[in-house]
Amino acid sequence: MQSETGRTAPALSTPAAGPTVVDFTEAELIARVRAQLPKAPDWVALGIGDDACVVQPEKNRLEVLTVDALIEGVHFDRAFTPPAAIGHRALAVNLSDIAAMGAEPRLVLVSLALPQSLPVADYDHMMGGLAALAARYGAHVVGGNLTRSPGPMMVDITVTGTVKPRRALTRGGARPGHELYVTGTIGAASAGLEMLQSRVASISAPTDDDCIQRYLFPEPRVRSGLLLGRTRTASACIDLSDGLADAVRQLAGASGTGARIDAEALPIAAGARRWFQSRGADDVHAAVVGGDDYELLVAVPPRARRQLAGILGAAGPLTRIGVCTAEPDIIMHYPDGRALPLPTGYSHFR
Amino acid sequence: MQSETGRTAPALSTPAAGPTVVDFTEAELIARVRAQLPKAPDWVALGIGDDACVVQPEKNRLEVLTVDALIEGVHFDRAFTPPAAIGHRALAVNLSDIAAMGAEPRLVLVSLALPQSLPVADYDHMMGGLAALAARYGAHVVGGNLTRSPGPMMVDITVTGTVKPRRALTRGGARPGHELYVTGTIGAASAGLEMLQSRVASISAPTDDDCIQRYLFPEPRVRSGLLLGRTRTASACIDLSDGLADAVRQLAGASGTGARIDAEALPIAAGARRWFQSRGADDVHAAVVGGDDYELLVAVPPRARRQLAGILGAAGPLTRIGVCTAEPDIIMHYPDGRALPLPTGYSHFR
Repeated sequence: MQSETGRTAPALSTPAAGPTVVDFTEAELIARVRAQLPKAPDWVALGIGDDACVVQPEKNRLEVLTVDALIEGVHFDRAFTPPAAIGHRALAVNLSDIAAMGAEPRLVLVSLALPQSLPVADYDHMMGGLAALAARYGAHVVGGNLTRSPGPMMVDITVTGTVKPRRALTRGGARPGHELYVTGTIGAASAGLEMLQSRVASISAPTDDDCIQRYLFPEPRVRSGLLLGRTRTASACIDLSDGLADAVRQLAGASGTGARIDAEALPIAAGARRWFQSRGADDVHAAVVGGDDYELLVAVPPRARRQLAGILGAAGPLTRIGVCTAEPDIIMHYPDGRALPLPTGYSHFR
Repeated sequence: MQSETGRTAPALSTPAAGPTVVDFTEAELIARVRAQLPKAPDWVALGIGDDACVVQPEKNRLEVLTVDALIEGVHFDRAFTPPAAIGHRALAVNLSDIAAMGAEPRLVLVSLALPQSLPVADYDHMMGGLAALAARYGAHVVGGNLTRSPGPMMVDITVTGTVKPRRALTRGGARPGHELYVTGTIGAASAGLEMLQSRVASISAPTDDDCIQRYLFPEPRVRSGLLLGRTRTASACIDLSDGLADAVRQLAGASGTGARIDAEALPIAAGARRWFQSRGADDVHAAVVGGDDYELLVAVPPRARRQLAGILGAAGPLTRIGVCTAEPDIIMHYPDGRALPLPTGYSHFR
């Protein structure tokens, strides 16, 4: 059966799904994204549609570049991740890297590998979720690539940002005595993921909408990172993509320090604490190894305490959770007096 | 069985394969890439290893950015594509886009989704192929991302380049009367792909090493693009990633012209012509719809004929194949007097 445009109608075996991406040409799919994007700013000399995009660099700034992929079956499950959340998260993980450098997001390239069975409505919602988040942080989608995938969906995103010279935050600037802070709360996203998985498995358990929202639509700490960098408050910074425990190890390792974390001080999200406890899990352990929070871990030298006080309201909640140490060990102190190695974080690769 | 490093030895079911990427941590795999890369240039303020890389932009230049993915099962078949060729091709398709803009390659971000069964030796060779091509064109790998894939291998590459203001080549600058040229020869890569496929299918046919090499290790026309842009010889340019027929349609469409192509003038690679004819195919048709050549299609205004003559040797072979027309049709003229619509090119998406 042919439609009026000469394309084959969807197979009868999937009658309710509507048209899929394979019913459209690449040009049509690109046009559908463009319709969701705001007008390009003046610094975009040539946007979507040529062999490459052309932009004017920002004067007197360094450029920050990062790339991160979300792979279906590794980083998300389409069974419980709405398309808008896939698009949002794929960009958020990259904006979080830009935030961790103290940089301001600027442009976005989107590379998609899509299963041919993907409903075009899902594609539209995915790009809508991405476009909405980009607009909120002043980042502009200037190009990308579109191909089919014979397997999982892949959303690979490149984001660039800019930062003033000598204001970029790295992982390696902390020294013994620098205090460790974390933005927001931890554990909510990994609890939210478990909640979504339990629903699919038909496990009856009291879920928490805030945790689920934190997993599906994480908010990158762009404003916090910018303020921490501009004011020279932070000596080192990293985002929590793979969990707090991993972030502490990475920051301390790059800085050549150890770290002491105070378990009682950890800002574990209330809903996450309830969830982990209801599942019989150690809530502190679960919260420090759980990934996907996209908060920032920040080292603050004693000399910068005044700057920190000055930005506390504007940079969002910041909680002191420990200190960098001269001894190389990464230790967590518990309220009952135990001092144990901080658990090892999650590895995306294995 | 545990090795000395405490890692599990490869399963006995794959005794000859050696260690796979899953036997290594992400940090170890990144270190193996770094070992194959030259020292970063001074403009790289912060390279591989932090949340993002930080670079100094080039003064008085516009920036050109492109992203392109190679997906196993869509763009390459591991059965006959050596790992070094996968890495080479993944970068070459991006350098070809930079070349088509008349820009100079600068930096490379590599995002990999790898099956856990991938031998680490294959991973090393893949990155070696990529690193060798990058070094040849002065492009520097400054960052990337590494994750596992539950399905096909995906190699997604972002390349940036720089170009002087008003020297960027676009697809849309051609006008009626501008002559169309193509670099190098066409058809070799698609013939080479067919040869490799025929070997796997145990079809006995006379293959041609030059065609196979052109498919596996395409040489992006970076130097040609740079010269055509710098000297203002070209009014429009596009690369032939999806074949000459597609490129002519895209360039003419973006420029608002038609085009007339002279079939007899097409620089079809001799080995490709022999191959297509031996298979009973129309060699001209096969050469114009075949993809993967990564040559450049260039429009040259009559006023730029002198510039063209001046760069002909240095920019490599350039063959006049037709002209842009005021009539909107895209026509191919054959030696026997026929004038037919140029065949429709290949679509990567469907």
